[in-house]
Amino acid sequence: MVASQTREGASPVDAGSLGIICGGGSLPLAVADAASRHGRRVVMFALRGFADGEVERYPCHWIVLGALGRFFRLLRQENCRDLVFIGSLTRPTFGRFRLGFRLDLATIRRLPRIARAFRGGDDHLLAGIARMIEDEGFRMLGAHEVAPEILLAEGALGTRAPTESDRVDIVRGLELLAATGPFDIGQAAVIAGRQVLAVEAIEGTDRMLERIVALRQEGRIRVPAGTGVLVKAPKPQQDRRFDLPTIGPETVEAVARAGLAGLAAVAGAAIVAEPQRLVQLAEARGVFVLGIKPAGAGA
Amino acid sequence: MVASQTREGASPVDAGSLGIICGGGSLPLAVADAASRHGRRVVMFALRGFADGEVERYPCHWIVLGALGRFFRLLRQENCRDLVFIGSLTRPTFGRFRLGFRLDLATIRRLPRIARAFRGGDDHLLAGIARMIEDEGFRMLGAHEVAPEILLAEGALGTRAPTESDRVDIVRGLELLAATGPFDIGQAAVIAGRQVLAVEAIEGTDRMLERIVALRQEGRIRVPAGTGVLVKAPKPQQDRRFDLPTIGPETVEAVARAGLAGLAAVAGAAIVAEPQRLVQLAEARGVFVLGIKPAGAGA
Repeated sequence: MVASQTREGASPVDAGSLGIICGGGSLPLAVADAASRHGRRVVMFALRGFADGEVERYPCHWIVLGALGRFFRLLRQENCRDLVFIGSLTRPTFGRFRLGFRLDLATIRRLPRIARAFRGGDDHLLAGIARMIEDEGFRMLGAHEVAPEILLAEGALGTRAPTESDRVDIVRGLELLAATGPFDIGQAAVIAGRQVLAVEAIEGTDRMLERIVALRQEGRIRVPAGTGVLVKAPKPQQDRRFDLPTIGPETVEAVARAGLAGLAAVAGAAIVAEPQRLVQLAEARGVFVLGIKPAGAGA
Repeated sequence: MVASQTREGASPVDAGSLGIICGGGSLPLAVADAASRHGRRVVMFALRGFADGEVERYPCHWIVLGALGRFFRLLRQENCRDLVFIGSLTRPTFGRFRLGFRLDLATIRRLPRIARAFRGGDDHLLAGIARMIEDEGFRMLGAHEVAPEILLAEGALGTRAPTESDRVDIVRGLELLAATGPFDIGQAAVIAGRQVLAVEAIEGTDRMLERIVALRQEGRIRVPAGTGVLVKAPKPQQDRRFDLPTIGPETVEAVARAGLAGLAAVAGAAIVAEPQRLVQLAEARGVFVLGIKPAGAGA
């Protein structure tokens, strides 16, 4: 297959090429590899300043925020009706978005709409930008829809398993995250010995775990090292197409540094980055990594 | 009135002396002053390592954790049936509690019970210790029951008032804290432009606000300085006798440093430390301090 055949109205079976908007980290390549294995042609749209240079292993265009017109043109040229966004992306401020880049006409025309999307939580921002792209006739898919193998499966990754007391903490964490979900905040909390040690908001999981390290050094955490669980869950009304929580080797390392017993995330609702390295590290550091059966998924 | 008349079964009018168990900060003296003005004899029980030396302005016994027998004897000697605990107290670990002090017999006998109280959240710990004291025939009162003037009143303290957009953030903060309340975690959150920036757990309000300062410096907060509100509320099933949130001049200073518009706490459910200095500082720093009408208190 070569680029640039415009196939409007392609049959569902021949869905054209898959465009992957690449943020940082290894996940864009993992998704591209999986989609390729499933027989799909892949084109990378690498976000300058975020994406890793390795994504050029696939046909690749470097794109910048603020050049929507060029982006839409490239998508049509490459016959990419289906799009996936994957990878890490530090949230830009609207001011930086507006001033820091040379905006093309298509972007300027949409500025009021972009500004509206910037108000509210992350879900709101991502959903607003996705709608803008879909209004151009493209289809935003979740990375897991084109590469289901990147999702966390039920059960333990590796040989470590949670104790009974860890399981109590996991249940409490899930209950807490169910309560905070409607507020469009972080998707993680740390529970130890039934006490909630930390709740994630905009600081992110890494920073929350650093806080645990500091509080432990100061003697503010009374449970011994090796106790406590990082619990991650999707928000109840989250659009899973572009905001699934991710766990990777760095997560395992941060969990170990925070002196926790392990981490638990809802199966099917978290992406695993670099699974082999993750399991190796979990074994070496003695922490468990658990995929939890989703609520309402039966016994 | 002099000490040491044992008046068991004193009439409600002559309720005996009031024992104030003093943690750190200026509040123990504020409560003592108010209770004295209301005609009550006051005896301070100053917690060594926490209480300020100034509490010796009143009849005073220095007490240590781990000497419950002596504490109960002194209470009876001083005719203190009613007790208030007030002031800041870093939570000790159970290990430190057990090893760091010479324990008397009365304490050792209660160790299993104390250990049980140490499991679970702060509410659980305080409630457990209060029950232990009440089982000896004493009565634990809330500081606001003997000194209602220390509570935050409805309306603005000082001249600054919240804008309409601040009020939207306050409502969102109250809704969030109502959702997290059942989990016995922090009683505060920071909301700005409808987005939840931070949720307090065991790190405490000061530390949460320091996080806002850091995130702002890193450009991770997109609302301009002077936007956003610190919202504090009591937990739904909290025993208000000994765990009301406190706001003081340091809180105002931390709110200003975090670049927020102000702070709002539920009226009648927060204690104001050093009100004059607080108002002066709020005016100087241009932040509002608001007592919110409690939910269900009518229009």
